[in-house]
Amino acid sequence: MNGVEVNDTPLFNKIALIGFGLIGGSIARAARAQGLAGEIVTTARSAKTRARVMELGIVDAVLETNAQAVENADLVILCIPVGACGPVAQEIAGHLKPGAIVSDVGSVKGAVVRDMAPYLPEGVHFVPAHPVAGTEHSGPDSGFAELFINRWCILTPPEGTDTAAVEKLRAFWAAIGAKVEIMTPDHHDMVLAITSHLPHLIAYTIVGTADELEGVTQSEVLKFSAGGFRDFTRIAASDPTMWRDVFLTNKDAVLEMLGTFTEDLSKLTRAIRRGDGEALFEHFTRTRAIRRGIVEIGQDSAAADFGRPHAHLGKKPE
Amino acid sequence: MNGVEVNDTPLFNKIALIGFGLIGGSIARAARAQGLAGEIVTTARSAKTRARVMELGIVDAVLETNAQAVENADLVILCIPVGACGPVAQEIAGHLKPGAIVSDVGSVKGAVVRDMAPYLPEGVHFVPAHPVAGTEHSGPDSGFAELFINRWCILTPPEGTDTAAVEKLRAFWAAIGAKVEIMTPDHHDMVLAITSHLPHLIAYTIVGTADELEGVTQSEVLKFSAGGFRDFTRIAASDPTMWRDVFLTNKDAVLEMLGTFTEDLSKLTRAIRRGDGEALFEHFTRTRAIRRGIVEIGQDSAAADFGRPHAHLGKKPE
Repeated sequence: MNGVEVNDTPLFNKIALIGFGLIGGSIARAARAQGLAGEIVTTARSAKTRARVMELGIVDAVLETNAQAVENADLVILCIPVGACGPVAQEIAGHLKPGAIVSDVGSVKGAVVRDMAPYLPEGVHFVPAHPVAGTEHSGPDSGFAELFINRWCILTPPEGTDTAAVEKLRAFWAAIGAKVEIMTPDHHDMVLAITSHLPHLIAYTIVGTADELEGVTQSEVLKFSAGGFRDFTRIAASDPTMWRDVFLTNKDAVLEMLGTFTEDLSKLTRAIRRGDGEALFEHFTRTRAIRRGIVEIGQDSAAADFGRPHAHLGKKPE
Repeated sequence: MNGVEVNDTPLFNKIALIGFGLIGGSIARAARAQGLAGEIVTTARSAKTRARVMELGIVDAVLETNAQAVENADLVILCIPVGACGPVAQEIAGHLKPGAIVSDVGSVKGAVVRDMAPYLPEGVHFVPAHPVAGTEHSGPDSGFAELFINRWCILTPPEGTDTAAVEKLRAFWAAIGAKVEIMTPDHHDMVLAITSHLPHLIAYTIVGTADELEGVTQSEVLKFSAGGFRDFTRIAASDPTMWRDVFLTNKDAVLEMLGTFTEDLSKLTRAIRRGDGEALFEHFTRTRAIRRGIVEIGQDSAAADFGRPHAHLGKKPE
């Protein structure tokens, strides 16, 4: 479609993105903006999404099958729910170019390695990846080129993976704005259980609780949500398929974190029941420091309310 | 200080704000901007805060004692933690002007009515209020005039309160941008337990959990917080004194909501343990609708990520 190249020597001649949702669509836009590929092709499961991606005009081709898409690609990235990675690996295995890098963007890494690795042929470099970035929106229109800027992308290459392939994928993520870290799949799954999976589970739970209360109407929940509740609804609006797969595939780490969380909640519940103001105050003071730390390292906005837009008063003072 | 008046006939000749934190400071700025008071005076517990408020130059006078501040005021608003409202009511009772409206901004209403009402003399109109608005910041510099725009302010006047006084306070809140609703203190406390108090408790809990984990370092928690965790840290950075008082004074409603939440969490935990993908998918789909409802009625931003600012990529495509 638009073959404009910014880099004289793009990092990859051909990139194939399997799936064009929030993450796939953002990678495509960012790689295009930075001139990282001679050609970007994609595919999606539904004909409707493929048609929409054609209209958007971001990629060079939209193919019907995953097997077609990966033909001759130097970099293949699966941008699909974790549970779909195994079957897709099986589907594309026989069509991969020797020397190609195969990666993904899944939020769970142990299961992805277990499900994909057995299918991938020798001579293909498997470098699983997880960009820790996202919004509550999904679908082909939801992506944007800036999504990964200043966010971390975690690579979990199996032992013995070609270091040149790892470095090339690191360079790709760095070029679209991400900071890259390497760890084992197991450690990744434990870290993400607390920084991402448990928060989502808690948010999904409390939003469900509020939906079914007796004595408080749903209209009241919506109206007075600015008291704190609305912050939870954002992540409880994330893609249901993706999150179902996360909890099915990172079960052990999530259940472990849940156990610790439940103990801590019991401790605070007891302090409330006993009227122990000192224990509450001490806890609430400690948690402030963590927010400060996140803002200081640039992982969230320092602006009040995340920088949510505020309207203006009708009248002006002078 | 600056006696500029926008309205020819301000709603109140003199407003006294007891406390100049996020809420008091925002009311002062908004009332000033809208010309709602002939004179605004304030006071604060610490000499340091009083000195800072003087420097800011938003109010006409900063007084040393609460008794001095309320002298001759037509509207007195306590903008202090819920637990301090009883003692302050006792302190100001003998200095209130007959016919004055006395109000507050506390997040709990049953306890405020119970603690303040016994001290207030006949001929003074007691109209408790709760503006459902805030940010994670506190102190005299944190306020801004736009804080209440399009947010709800709940009034909980005791039975038999002078309707003209209630209407006058309603007009005041409407003039600084709020929408006003009237309900009983008990119903208020139940509604806020789910829309505000429980979300804060959960956020305080999980942020504490993340702070004490073995196997995941604090630096990892901060770095990978964009996976969802950082959304919780905002409200877990709220003022510890205010929130200690909320949980001490709205104990029953909070414990009731906690019970329901804990049951719901057990249900989802069981679904994860059993690998029940259908139950998870069904739940995660239902909670999306609530987010949509909140955005539709204008209680949150429709922009991805709450409209958090995103940086730009270094290179431009053309």
